[in-house]
Amino acid sequence: MQKVYLDNASTTPLLPEVREAMLPFLGEIFGNPSSLHDWGDAARMAIDEARSQVAQLIGANSEEIIFTGSGTESNNFAIKGLAMARQSAGKHIVISAIEHFSVMNSARTMEKMGFELTLVPVDKYGVVDVGEVAKSIRKDTVLVSVMHANGEVGTIEPIQEIAKITKEKGVAFHTDAVATAGTIPVNVKELGVDALSLAGNQFYGPKGVGALWVRKGVRIMPLLDGGIQEGGRRGGTENVPAIVGLGKAAEIAAADMASRIKRLTPLRDYLLKEMPVKVSHVIVTGHPTNRLPGHASFCVEFIEGESMLMLLNMQGVAVASGSACTSKALKASHVLIAMGLPHELAQGSLLFSLGKDNTQKDMDYVLDVMPPIVDRLRQMSPLYSKFVKENKGGKQ
Amino acid sequence: MQKVYLDNASTTPLLPEVREAMLPFLGEIFGNPSSLHDWGDAARMAIDEARSQVAQLIGANSEEIIFTGSGTESNNFAIKGLAMARQSAGKHIVISAIEHFSVMNSARTMEKMGFELTLVPVDKYGVVDVGEVAKSIRKDTVLVSVMHANGEVGTIEPIQEIAKITKEKGVAFHTDAVATAGTIPVNVKELGVDALSLAGNQFYGPKGVGALWVRKGVRIMPLLDGGIQEGGRRGGTENVPAIVGLGKAAEIAAADMASRIKRLTPLRDYLLKEMPVKVSHVIVTGHPTNRLPGHASFCVEFIEGESMLMLLNMQGVAVASGSACTSKALKASHVLIAMGLPHELAQGSLLFSLGKDNTQKDMDYVLDVMPPIVDRLRQMSPLYSKFVKENKGGKQ
Repeated sequence: MQKVYLDNASTTPLLPEVREAMLPFLGEIFGNPSSLHDWGDAARMAIDEARSQVAQLIGANSEEIIFTGSGTESNNFAIKGLAMARQSAGKHIVISAIEHFSVMNSARTMEKMGFELTLVPVDKYGVVDVGEVAKSIRKDTVLVSVMHANGEVGTIEPIQEIAKITKEKGVAFHTDAVATAGTIPVNVKELGVDALSLAGNQFYGPKGVGALWVRKGVRIMPLLDGGIQEGGRRGGTENVPAIVGLGKAAEIAAADMASRIKRLTPLRDYLLKEMPVKVSHVIVTGHPTNRLPGHASFCVEFIEGESMLMLLNMQGVAVASGSACTSKALKASHVLIAMGLPHELAQGSLLFSLGKDNTQKDMDYVLDVMPPIVDRLRQMSPLYSKFVKENKGGKQ
Repeated sequence: MQKVYLDNASTTPLLPEVREAMLPFLGEIFGNPSSLHDWGDAARMAIDEARSQVAQLIGANSEEIIFTGSGTESNNFAIKGLAMARQSAGKHIVISAIEHFSVMNSARTMEKMGFELTLVPVDKYGVVDVGEVAKSIRKDTVLVSVMHANGEVGTIEPIQEIAKITKEKGVAFHTDAVATAGTIPVNVKELGVDALSLAGNQFYGPKGVGALWVRKGVRIMPLLDGGIQEGGRRGGTENVPAIVGLGKAAEIAAADMASRIKRLTPLRDYLLKEMPVKVSHVIVTGHPTNRLPGHASFCVEFIEGESMLMLLNMQGVAVASGSACTSKALKASHVLIAMGLPHELAQGSLLFSLGKDNTQKDMDYVLDVMPPIVDRLRQMSPLYSKFVKENKGGKQ
């Protein structure tokens, strides 16, 4: 059976070159970067190089990069750390309604700790309403966080426009770039943000490592208290092999980004165009054009995403129904609901996230296996029976 | 030149078997454990097995193990998460004066957030005063945290005795077992604690992974908000290869612990006995017998630990002068100060932490290179000149 992995938004595989770069640090170069001897020096030099590689990927200075254990940690660190460092100035936070749960739930935690929270709405494509961001900023607003792109629906957000507003109003601005860093051009100076999160396993680097970039001079309170690692901003022995892998993945992503985008975009567009042709009652979610290159997402009417996942898996195809972080929660995505989709339709969410090695053949295979799967599930669907009864002559 | 690594308290190397166990997860088995397809299933099964291996090492149930990114994260999670979950019952925390900075500074952060903090003193061996723990517990005390053993001076703490008190008084009790889990027997039921931290890179497992064990029924607030990973208690894509490595290292540690202890203890005792013979004006720090098996720590009078580190490194020997997490901070260890050592003496701290492959030959090599190093540094030491002048006839 053909195996087609189309769940790169959940995690990408490791590049062989990244794995090779990591291996010495799972072997002879095992020291603690904080140790004052040759073993420590070798580890420290390696993470310094990785820091520079990650900085280059996003147009930052090395010393502004703080390594973390995941994109989720980066987002927790940003929301909690930036808000806590500013609480004497005010206790109001603004985020979009479609943030990842690591941002959303961190903001909810701050709410429990006495902060006020405003969620800014999005349009039907999932684009954050810039005017609403401006309106929501108050005298006591200390932090705005809007993601660079949404991993569930692929929509790229107007970060530069929002940054103009936050700059003018003197409010710290964080963006969750976990879905974009290493995938599309991300330059912290061009974006104009004050802090930015990224994660290794989103661009062929390892799991267990992420980074938070914080503009020099921007105050942040540590999330992980401890030793003097990462300039005293993040305690814990550095995950040297993973950091080295992140650095290597960043270097390769910077070099290959243009060609990856060029290859993936037409495949994505093919899927976006053909899926609603092959399968009836399918809508594209997210922005039709201003979206992540390898990202095609849909809602399939009358059936549930999870059932489709299971049957696709039986055909060798890996996809997701929204964020992997909530895949087992079986709740309609807050992202799709915020975009105005009815609850029932949101349940039929399906997300194809392509990787750099996917081919036209993979796309055709998916487009071949989808119609019978949808047919089969709709045969069992009371919602579909009801629809057919009410709309005699409806296709399928 | 002979290379002798005696800094296993900073980090151990990876066991080849652990590395082998990890490699497939840096290759073909790359899925996100939260994904609902074969790729995700393979990753999920692997972390389930690791969870069981870690649970077995400490006599716990699998579902009580929460994987984290480091011992430091485990400690932050425990202190902040247990305190926050109990704040309606009271806002007083008790810790020992010699906790690792990840516990100490987490408690300081809680202090800034309105909690009160009591530091319990230790005796000259670094043993926590159990009577003082009992006395320090108030009606509003919600958390006690005392480490199982101190990584800087090796002393093993009377956790069982403290647990009797906290149980009687109904206070949650956490122990930082980063220095002990995988090294000496650790059984959560026998210890009687409510939460326990451990870290992979302390017993030949990987960096970038730790675990917090929390007794079933004990409430804890997440430190990393996010998705539904780890039962909703710790967000972020699981670091699958590192978790698999931690599990394998736990399994091997459980099997080899007795023989490792049997081999290391006489080497440690040899070093503890011979160092003050070979080098004048040296004192052993920590408990003379009730200490970690591979752990020998000293204070060398009239000179600074860091200078010794440099010269030992030039002879191929890796050691530490206290905790790696603060090695570059150049401050006298709070542990030694709490044990009543004068500031000047504490500056001359030196910690030899042996690993399972160290030999008698390594010990003899170190005992050979130490005296000329100390001599050389003392020749440059104003403190030593002063001492010699005041004590004519003093040795060396």
